[in-house]
Amino acid sequence: MKRIADSTVRRLSAYLRFLEDFEGRGLSTISSDELARRGGTTSAQVRKDLSFFGSFGKRGLGYSVPELAGRLREILGLERQWKVIIIGAGKIGAALVAYRGFRQRGFHILAAYDANPEKVGKQLEGIPVRDIGQLERDVPKDTPDIAVVTVPAENAQAVVERVVAAGIKAILNFAPVQLQVPSDVTVKTVNMAMELEGLSFALTNRD
Amino acid sequence: MKRIADSTVRRLSAYLRFLEDFEGRGLSTISSDELARRGGTTSAQVRKDLSFFGSFGKRGLGYSVPELAGRLREILGLERQWKVIIIGAGKIGAALVAYRGFRQRGFHILAAYDANPEKVGKQLEGIPVRDIGQLERDVPKDTPDIAVVTVPAENAQAVVERVVAAGIKAILNFAPVQLQVPSDVTVKTVNMAMELEGLSFALTNRD
Repeated sequence: MKRIADSTVRRLSAYLRFLEDFEGRGLSTISSDELARRGGTTSAQVRKDLSFFGSFGKRGLGYSVPELAGRLREILGLERQWKVIIIGAGKIGAALVAYRGFRQRGFHILAAYDANPEKVGKQLEGIPVRDIGQLERDVPKDTPDIAVVTVPAENAQAVVERVVAAGIKAILNFAPVQLQVPSDVTVKTVNMAMELEGLSFALTNRD
Repeated sequence: MKRIADSTVRRLSAYLRFLEDFEGRGLSTISSDELARRGGTTSAQVRKDLSFFGSFGKRGLGYSVPELAGRLREILGLERQWKVIIIGAGKIGAALVAYRGFRQRGFHILAAYDANPEKVGKQLEGIPVRDIGQLERDVPKDTPDIAVVTVPAENAQAVVERVVAAGIKAILNFAPVQLQVPSDVTVKTVNMAMELEGLSFALTNRD
């Protein structure tokens, strides 16, 4: 398949949310105009985004809401359960473990890992906190798909190398650092400061 | 100014990080190729992104690192301090208050607000937790620029309406819900599940 830009994938996720909202309200069809309006984009963009994945909708009739929602869940890989581990049982780790949106979307958190003996053996919202020393032993057994890295910036690269060596191919990184990984590993970095910079830009460049 | 896409602003933030990394290593010039390589994009994209904001760099000589970094800080509005309040002193609020990256970037957290009497009057990492009932009285006095909303989804729209009525023009939203705001208010939504969906997509659509 053609390489799809991250921004396209984000829009697909957003479209799915709107479709599920429409589904919840019992609506059966939606136009690309309406989908565009809700997503703050253009109907040409909606059609282009969807065109990567085949043919959808009927000219003049719009899209079938349940059909397009189902197809987007399929495209996004949300029709199966993904196993997730969290590395770092600090404040961000605790917030993520408590986050209901993950389980709703089929992301199942298996365990958190930490190096701090005061945390190891305890639980975070019912999720066990394990010794990071166990990582290499646990991964082949538990086969997690995704590792969420919430350790301090200075430890992140070393932790990620262990995660990658253990065979995990997808990483969600909260450390404010650019991680180096092999080309077959996907990393997404969530940078809170960068989100605020988007607001700072908007406030600075108002009409 | 021409409307700049969010994805462009995100890339500007990323370029600034790489430039600061280069500055820290004492490098004085950088090519658009190098900036593109670090940012996972093309040099044509780098030149296009920067072209919105005037003329940078000399053909064949690349960009001056301190000059471009300074200009990007200016464009992103990072040469001043922004005052931030956090609505919701739960787990996400606590993680954000502890996040060092905010202060480093000139985002100063004034206070957190909560409705829970057990939290009000306490502190989160040295930041006072105030009664949400005080919001309308405090905002005109403290003039926060940005509100970070970390309340449960079902309360988010009502809280945001109070924030907007109080005069705040920029909102960072962590609630998994689409917020309705007037057109002069900027909202950015951080959706953790959507980040994981990007990984799910990557794992599902591997070559």
